[in-house]
Amino acid sequence: MSFYTQLKYFLMGSPLPTSAFAEERLTKAEALAVLSSDALSSVAYATEEILLVLVVAGSGVLKLSLPIAVGIVLLLTIITLSYRQTIRAYPQGGGAYTVARENLGLYPGLIAAASLMVDYILTVTVSVAAGIAALTSAIPQLKPVTVELCLLLIFLLMLANLRGLRSSGKLFSLPTYSFIVTIFLLIGMGILQSFRGQITSLSPSLVPHQSLTLFILCRAFAAGCTALTGVEAISNGVMVFKSPEWKNARLTLMYMVTILGLMFLGITYLSHLYHVVPQEQQTVLSQLGRQIWGNGFFYYVLQGTTLLILLLAANTSYADFPRLSYFLARDDFLPRQLLLLGDRLVYSNGIIFLSFCAAILVFLFKGQVNAIIPLYAVGVFTSFTLSQAGMVRHWLKEKSSRWQQSVMINGFGTVVTAIVLIILITTKFSEGAWLVLMIIPLLVWLFLVICRHYQHMREQLCIDGLTIQSSSRKPKTEESTHPAVVLVGQLNRGTIQALDYARTIADQIVAVHVNIGETDEHILQQKWQQLESDIPLIILDSPYRSIVGPLREFIGNFEAQYPGQFCTIILPVFMARHWWEDWLHNQTVLFLRQALRAKKSRVITTVRFYV
Amino acid sequence: MSFYTQLKYFLMGSPLPTSAFAEERLTKAEALAVLSSDALSSVAYATEEILLVLVVAGSGVLKLSLPIAVGIVLLLTIITLSYRQTIRAYPQGGGAYTVARENLGLYPGLIAAASLMVDYILTVTVSVAAGIAALTSAIPQLKPVTVELCLLLIFLLMLANLRGLRSSGKLFSLPTYSFIVTIFLLIGMGILQSFRGQITSLSPSLVPHQSLTLFILCRAFAAGCTALTGVEAISNGVMVFKSPEWKNARLTLMYMVTILGLMFLGITYLSHLYHVVPQEQQTVLSQLGRQIWGNGFFYYVLQGTTLLILLLAANTSYADFPRLSYFLARDDFLPRQLLLLGDRLVYSNGIIFLSFCAAILVFLFKGQVNAIIPLYAVGVFTSFTLSQAGMVRHWLKEKSSRWQQSVMINGFGTVVTAIVLIILITTKFSEGAWLVLMIIPLLVWLFLVICRHYQHMREQLCIDGLTIQSSSRKPKTEESTHPAVVLVGQLNRGTIQALDYARTIADQIVAVHVNIGETDEHILQQKWQQLESDIPLIILDSPYRSIVGPLREFIGNFEAQYPGQFCTIILPVFMARHWWEDWLHNQTVLFLRQALRAKKSRVITTVRFYV
Repeated sequence: MSFYTQLKYFLMGSPLPTSAFAEERLTKAEALAVLSSDALSSVAYATEEILLVLVVAGSGVLKLSLPIAVGIVLLLTIITLSYRQTIRAYPQGGGAYTVARENLGLYPGLIAAASLMVDYILTVTVSVAAGIAALTSAIPQLKPVTVELCLLLIFLLMLANLRGLRSSGKLFSLPTYSFIVTIFLLIGMGILQSFRGQITSLSPSLVPHQSLTLFILCRAFAAGCTALTGVEAISNGVMVFKSPEWKNARLTLMYMVTILGLMFLGITYLSHLYHVVPQEQQTVLSQLGRQIWGNGFFYYVLQGTTLLILLLAANTSYADFPRLSYFLARDDFLPRQLLLLGDRLVYSNGIIFLSFCAAILVFLFKGQVNAIIPLYAVGVFTSFTLSQAGMVRHWLKEKSSRWQQSVMINGFGTVVTAIVLIILITTKFSEGAWLVLMIIPLLVWLFLVICRHYQHMREQLCIDGLTIQSSSRKPKTEESTHPAVVLVGQLNRGTIQALDYARTIADQIVAVHVNIGETDEHILQQKWQQLESDIPLIILDSPYRSIVGPLREFIGNFEAQYPGQFCTIILPVFMARHWWEDWLHNQTVLFLRQALRAKKSRVITTVRFYV
Repeated sequence: MSFYTQLKYFLMGSPLPTSAFAEERLTKAEALAVLSSDALSSVAYATEEILLVLVVAGSGVLKLSLPIAVGIVLLLTIITLSYRQTIRAYPQGGGAYTVARENLGLYPGLIAAASLMVDYILTVTVSVAAGIAALTSAIPQLKPVTVELCLLLIFLLMLANLRGLRSSGKLFSLPTYSFIVTIFLLIGMGILQSFRGQITSLSPSLVPHQSLTLFILCRAFAAGCTALTGVEAISNGVMVFKSPEWKNARLTLMYMVTILGLMFLGITYLSHLYHVVPQEQQTVLSQLGRQIWGNGFFYYVLQGTTLLILLLAANTSYADFPRLSYFLARDDFLPRQLLLLGDRLVYSNGIIFLSFCAAILVFLFKGQVNAIIPLYAVGVFTSFTLSQAGMVRHWLKEKSSRWQQSVMINGFGTVVTAIVLIILITTKFSEGAWLVLMIIPLLVWLFLVICRHYQHMREQLCIDGLTIQSSSRKPKTEESTHPAVVLVGQLNRGTIQALDYARTIADQIVAVHVNIGETDEHILQQKWQQLESDIPLIILDSPYRSIVGPLREFIGNFEAQYPGQFCTIILPVFMARHWWEDWLHNQTVLFLRQALRAKKSRVITTVRFYV
């Protein structure tokens, strides 16, 4: 086993047989843990994002975060009702790409797919950055190495997923439920302390930079919408539930949304009670933890569980992104390499590509959550809108039981998410949303180019109707000839072997040598005579010391004598014992292989002589 | 013509035929211009190097530079007398490598060669850096871009030499003779002015950092020895003189040495008269020019001709280094690539390698002459010593006319240069000479490794005594079989073409497909039946999704059925229209070519299908 293979096995584990590929079915409680981390973890930053927008109008208006949060929870309810319909209609899993493509057509499907791809990458980036923000809030000494820590986490996530980390219910339950319990404890104790009048607000009263406008309110609302990312996870993953799948999924969705809504409202309310103002040094959640629990055990539990659930949230993209890539590649929209199952039964190329993109974003935005957030949510709401619109078409086509009610619900969902999408784009455009709006059409264009290429190749390579004419059926006739040209550099054992091979495969053979001014033609011909070979040796003169020029011309003329036949060009090459020894020989052969490539019926073969 | 070729022709000029390769014969005056630039140009920095060492003992001891310079001129005389003997004995050109190898044996020859290689690289670096120092002395604004200017000059030198710049007497005469005239004018007018008492010394009186020791004196002497670099050029190039070659060469050597000695003494004397103290901002020569001529026309002529002759000096290495590399490669001590004449009849690889090394040194030493000087001269004196010692052996063997006298002269030369070499090494060891002392043995080791490799290859590939047994003489018998394996990925036109080719070259053919879990074997076999081919299709199962593993095993077993026969493995591959399209296909073929390489009698062939 090579060193590389050993290292790979050490990091990745040894290969698994294809038969080990199976999906685990999850109970409702396990499924909640596995599928909700993306949605639930967003409470770690959503409130802070609202406050960050409002604070430009002074700390006096921070109390407006409460009605904004209520508005977002309302939006959450509408989206949830919409997705309940999707779960019923797509028990095999209704991702936005599937729903939009089936119901709205190719282009909306591809737009949804592009939005989702962007979104998955951003989920990794935002979650990892927010997780590290939780860590550096608790341990401020780590703040200067934020970017390095983010990159390390992405690398570890990549490694774990390349090893074939399964979304196992048991593994995911502990961090998720710990986080939920910790947050509810925080909210409960926080409210209790405030009723006892134990609040010691240290936050300074900030003067406004700008006066409060409708635009700022909309921006704050848009910023809070990041709380909704990940809600679609359950409707995408209906098939992992135990039977009856769609009913269990619907119930789990309701649990998740209730928990998410309560946590989000609770944290926003606490921030209001404790007059929290966003700081650069620590997150809003960390400020609340320190004020309510002090710098003690519970505070560190809060930061620790926050970090863990954000890691799980990032990890969901590691399952979703390669799966979406697989679907797109299967439909010819992405390179075939994304179809390959790695040694550990995971789509390794997708995992590596996702990690690479996320790492670049972390690097560009210096691991700052606030800087990346404006890019987020645009993709999410694009896919929400397309998915809901697709559902409307679905019900109109299907007309199954209670279809009118479903059309109403999904139609309302479509309109609301479309409006939110417009708000998102207009308020966040200059801060980064423009980038996403450029990348999505670019991705769609790329999908189409790739698809066109594969279709073209398939047409060109198709063998339908070729069976009868195929020469492959003809028995080998004695009349057919097979010409071959053997290139002779020096006369050595390698050359002799190549001549032997030529005799084995061909019946019209010529040997050719190019004299670039260093060969004594007389001596060479004499040595050739001594071989007593019946193959003629032709020596070509090359006054300008080019090997390719004269050879190309000679071979062209030689081939012309045998129209319709394969002609084999044989290049003898000797293999040194060590790789570095190759540097000591003119790499003429490699170069000739490229240079002599030309006609369809020409085959270039290297015959290796092992020293 | 490709864009790359067009660009190459634009920069390099179009190719020249081999027949245009010829040497120009030079008159004494032209030869002096062509061969002496390296030696003469060293007066631009030699005096300064002496002063730089002495100044640590205070400006009071700078007057000692005069006796040191006299000592160096004495040394120059001894070396010149020695080289007069070499010119007589080696009218075909007696480089240190040739003389040492012929007379002292392999190892001394290789040591001389390694020293010369190091030395040629350093000549480029030092001359270019000193040339740029002359430029930045005149135009101080350019000082911050010293390194960039040095790299630019090296690049231009490389380009000019790749184009095939000939050491034409006419081209070289003007700068060389202008420099000589300017320097003598400077010396003459400087002395004249000092007699008239017009000296206005502005240099501050420096207090000593150290007291004057013998070690410092020796170091100053060693530093001044850089004035002797390049003296050997004429004895290396005897063959470029017009007939009678060796007499003309000897005379030219005398002219050159006289001019060099006078210029060096003159400049050192001027520095003493004008109390010049070395400065970082401008060279000693520039200080003298400014004091004697003011900041006027003559001053700029001085700096300009200095820059030009230093460029010529650097350029001599561009002729010598590739020539030495050629000799070493011809004797199997360096890679064969150095034997190739480029399009413009120059040894392009040697020119590029030299430029690359010089550029790295400029970069490492930030283009500072003073920093590179300690590395210089060690190589020169090593080759001086070996060359003289070789001459002693030569005379002792030959015993031609007046051999006793010649042995005396060369013996004395050997002893003196050996002593100077020891002084050089001990005084400059810690400042950089250690680097050269490490690199020279390393190079010798490399020469030997390369030589051993070529010898081994030659033995392995030798066909002596092979003529009778060679199967190349046997006529193709009907009984001999030729087995082939065709790899089938998908069933497409490319596969059909590969099968056709297999029928052309082989008579025992089998097609093989590896199922990594994505193939419906039944459908594939059905399609195969429809082709009505008589070639059997074998489908291999690969539970761990490895393509190489099962294939290797199958091919191994298949080959075992045909011992002593060539077995051809045919890989069908389709060629896309654009290079980027290759990214869209699994690069399995490239990877398989490598992985399946194994036995001597196995030939791997790709049959290309052009879409």
